[in-house]
Amino acid sequence: MNTVRASSRDRLLDAAAELFYSGGVHVGVQALCAAAGVSKRSMYQEFATKDELVAASLERSGPRYNALFLPEEADERTPRERILHVFERLEARSGSDRYRGCPFVSTAMELKDITHPASDVARRFKQQLTDFFEQQAGLAGAADPALLARQLTVVFDGAGARAVVSGKPLAGLALATATTLVDAATGGSSGETGRPRLSPG
Amino acid sequence: MNTVRASSRDRLLDAAAELFYSGGVHVGVQALCAAAGVSKRSMYQEFATKDELVAASLERSGPRYNALFLPEEADERTPRERILHVFERLEARSGSDRYRGCPFVSTAMELKDITHPASDVARRFKQQLTDFFEQQAGLAGAADPALLARQLTVVFDGAGARAVVSGKPLAGLALATATTLVDAATGGSSGETGRPRLSPG
Repeated sequence: MNTVRASSRDRLLDAAAELFYSGGVHVGVQALCAAAGVSKRSMYQEFATKDELVAASLERSGPRYNALFLPEEADERTPRERILHVFERLEARSGSDRYRGCPFVSTAMELKDITHPASDVARRFKQQLTDFFEQQAGLAGAADPALLARQLTVVFDGAGARAVVSGKPLAGLALATATTLVDAATGGSSGETGRPRLSPG
Repeated sequence: MNTVRASSRDRLLDAAAELFYSGGVHVGVQALCAAAGVSKRSMYQEFATKDELVAASLERSGPRYNALFLPEEADERTPRERILHVFERLEARSGSDRYRGCPFVSTAMELKDITHPASDVARRFKQQLTDFFEQQAGLAGAADPALLARQLTVVFDGAGARAVVSGKPLAGLALATATTLVDAATGGSSGETGRPRLSPG
């Protein structure tokens, strides 16, 4: 692959990730090509179908999206604090005008087709977040780390949906809900972290 | 309005609710008209724009959707049992091949536009569920009924998203999570309901 082709491909993937997030995966090929500055002919040289492009752009942008929420690998905080860090980041992001929820959830919900290649990508990236929660839940002494991890993923996605539906920041709701579930699973607050602040709304 | 026109309108609204739920709000006008057995010209006599049709079909199908989850008005169960009834119904629905998540959440997530008339409809129907939770949470003696109601809505929507992303039934996850939050807010299980059964997955 020469550098010109590599560059068209990357421009397409980046433009697609941005346009699909802000406008949905039904944004047309013409708008995509215009945003990427690539001809339709070049696009179809890189991707056999638009479905393939949807999957590839989510695959490329996925690690960056999950990294927005996960704490650094080397981090002196407790497992409980590392779990709650994810929800603190979600609270912050929900206040952005450009927040449109979790791209993995919205892609799967828009496609409504579990056999679509992008639905498979979405599932794998959601599993990465659940795996992080499960690992930390185990270290935090949760009675059933796998259950707590699934519960926290449900809160993460439900809170994201609420921010989209309401058009308002979460105002502490995600953090408070996650804190309650962590405390219930680990036998209460260890006092390691401050109480979450909860604004009305 | 004569009966023929009323009937076209209803056929369009019902076909739209079904097609938008199974295929998304980006399903085209042509497919809609074909499903409803109505000409495009008739459609545009009833609805000035497709956006208007999206909002009207959600408005029409919304009460039916919420009613799938809410308990009967006259019901001898406790407030706690009435809250958990919603999650028992969600568990059951998540096992259906035709389940595509909450239509209010998916419509808002697909449109990504808080000013769209259908986003407003979605917000109002989600608020009805939250209002039900808040009323029952107050009766159940929750410390902060409004907070518990928002938390339960987050679980409802996050669990729906999880069922869509994973393509699998919830296997007790929504009910277990809701139960933990209700218990934490009301000072523990009153023993009025059986423990939720939780399957692995």
